[in-house]
Amino acid sequence: MKKKLPIIAITMGDPASIGPEIAAKIFAKPEIYEICHPILIGDAGVMNTATRIAGVELNINTVAQVSEAIFELGTMDIFDLRNVNVSELKMGKISSMAGRAAFEAILKAIELALNHEVQATVTGPIHKEAINKAGFNFSGHTEIYAHYTNTSRYAMLLVHESMRVIHVSTHVSLRKACDLVKKERILEVIQLLDQACKRFGIKYPRIGVAGLNPHASDGGLFGKEEEEEILPAVLEALKRGYHVEGPVPADTLFTKAKGGLYDGCVAMYHDQGHIPFKLEGFTWDSESGKMKSVKGINVTVGLPIIRTSVDHGTAFEIAGKGIASPDALQLAVEYAVKMAETA
Amino acid sequence: MKKKLPIIAITMGDPASIGPEIAAKIFAKPEIYEICHPILIGDAGVMNTATRIAGVELNINTVAQVSEAIFELGTMDIFDLRNVNVSELKMGKISSMAGRAAFEAILKAIELALNHEVQATVTGPIHKEAINKAGFNFSGHTEIYAHYTNTSRYAMLLVHESMRVIHVSTHVSLRKACDLVKKERILEVIQLLDQACKRFGIKYPRIGVAGLNPHASDGGLFGKEEEEEILPAVLEALKRGYHVEGPVPADTLFTKAKGGLYDGCVAMYHDQGHIPFKLEGFTWDSESGKMKSVKGINVTVGLPIIRTSVDHGTAFEIAGKGIASPDALQLAVEYAVKMAETA
Repeated sequence: MKKKLPIIAITMGDPASIGPEIAAKIFAKPEIYEICHPILIGDAGVMNTATRIAGVELNINTVAQVSEAIFELGTMDIFDLRNVNVSELKMGKISSMAGRAAFEAILKAIELALNHEVQATVTGPIHKEAINKAGFNFSGHTEIYAHYTNTSRYAMLLVHESMRVIHVSTHVSLRKACDLVKKERILEVIQLLDQACKRFGIKYPRIGVAGLNPHASDGGLFGKEEEEEILPAVLEALKRGYHVEGPVPADTLFTKAKGGLYDGCVAMYHDQGHIPFKLEGFTWDSESGKMKSVKGINVTVGLPIIRTSVDHGTAFEIAGKGIASPDALQLAVEYAVKMAETA
Repeated sequence: MKKKLPIIAITMGDPASIGPEIAAKIFAKPEIYEICHPILIGDAGVMNTATRIAGVELNINTVAQVSEAIFELGTMDIFDLRNVNVSELKMGKISSMAGRAAFEAILKAIELALNHEVQATVTGPIHKEAINKAGFNFSGHTEIYAHYTNTSRYAMLLVHESMRVIHVSTHVSLRKACDLVKKERILEVIQLLDQACKRFGIKYPRIGVAGLNPHASDGGLFGKEEEEEILPAVLEALKRGYHVEGPVPADTLFTKAKGGLYDGCVAMYHDQGHIPFKLEGFTWDSESGKMKSVKGINVTVGLPIIRTSVDHGTAFEIAGKGIASPDALQLAVEYAVKMAETA
């Protein structure tokens, strides 16, 4: 009997960005249709232009319900929100129209997932300023998803090849991040990371927990968080049966993870996890003066629904040129499928 | 006419560590003698054993003054401090005898450099606990050198291939490090980095300065240090003619530097610089369960004398086995020579 494929909602992202183009490229890939039933959430006019930009030939099937989708290679099923005036859209520019359209696509994707009409959601890149210009005060997808799914226990997980990094905190000042290094929260993200790793197919995830201070405080010489918060969280996690080690000095933790010692890492703050992740997952192209993502993805863990995403941005500077790589989006779809299958 | 080669003092490091072994390997290299006149500062008995461990054949010429050194390939000139009882020395073990011997070698190297008897110093790995057990309360070479050369304006610079990272602060808690992000200090390390890059042969060093907070605070959304301290330092540096950019979000700065956009980076705290440096410069060998350094070095900048060093540790677990790589020490010598030539 043929395996039933999960339905994956893919949002187009900011319509003025590379989001629609890389989505169009994804819908043209046979290997995507082999693993899932993809449906685009966004504006059909934008996506029509995007197929031209992407240089792919796709029929467009606009639907007002998921049940109307046909899920056939060669056709892009679009849950059409009809919220962009294409003649007014300027590629590579921030606008409230684009911000609103991107935001509404996310809300629709969340709604469909909460209603079990789709099994997972994958998001294209959005621009924070455009979203805020449209009147929605969120700092990113993670916060939007948490808010509209009413979730308080969640975290940002970055994945690049064998490097998986979860964050105790994200978009707060470094001083505030120090305050958020608390035993309960660390224990929470250890559990979230363990769950996520298992859904990626790792049976017994080995987790390394970073220290906050240099040399993990060198036995208390610089800072008390290791002794008072991190070590107690690690000991409690061990007691509950997790395979966890720490606090590990942050400047060797990620090198060890890269070398295969850990399946996942717990970062105490945004840059502690993002610096090694972007050093591994991104390359700077000095000729073009542009950052290129190399298949890094972002997963919001702890939600009642599945959300994966590219980790790169809107890349406004190359929007509309047809040169954006869909690799990261493809990987995000693959991870969403994996998570849907183990849900 | 033959160029006069600089005299380089190489300390043996902790006698129970891999320090003596890698030093012995260095003295056996013709390419070292082509660029400098090396002299070992340490104990001749320890070094005699070390040549056997290293598997190199070297005559030992013990001297009590630099002027007695002969600087010939095949002979190791040793400024013999006669401070280790070899029959009591246990390889791979922390002891106050070893700590004292390592410390005294450093003091002698500093003294010789201050007296212009040697043109630069290169230090082998020491163990902080051994040093402290011997009664010397320092957290590392950097602090010892600063103290005994009476230097207040100095900083730790890490170098690995094209990545050069200087630190606003090092061995303090992360909270304290936030407090130390001050305009004057940032300006100071920009200048120190610029000077160092020039001594490495880079005519117009391009310097990237990291932000402290995630996304360099995203325009003040998370944290004020970018606006109040870092940007003013960058603007002042620009005014003084430095090629400097920032604050750059820390999670892209090092990727850009790796890609060739910057010759040097300013890190706001220890781990911000050490995480990317060790991810690039070290590899974790999962088979042996050991960290391997890949030619990363550490330079103390701002001193009246030259000091470069390996960036790896004492590696007690493989001390005495003959398998330690002298690559990082060789690179440290090469940098010391480069700096001596441009002093």
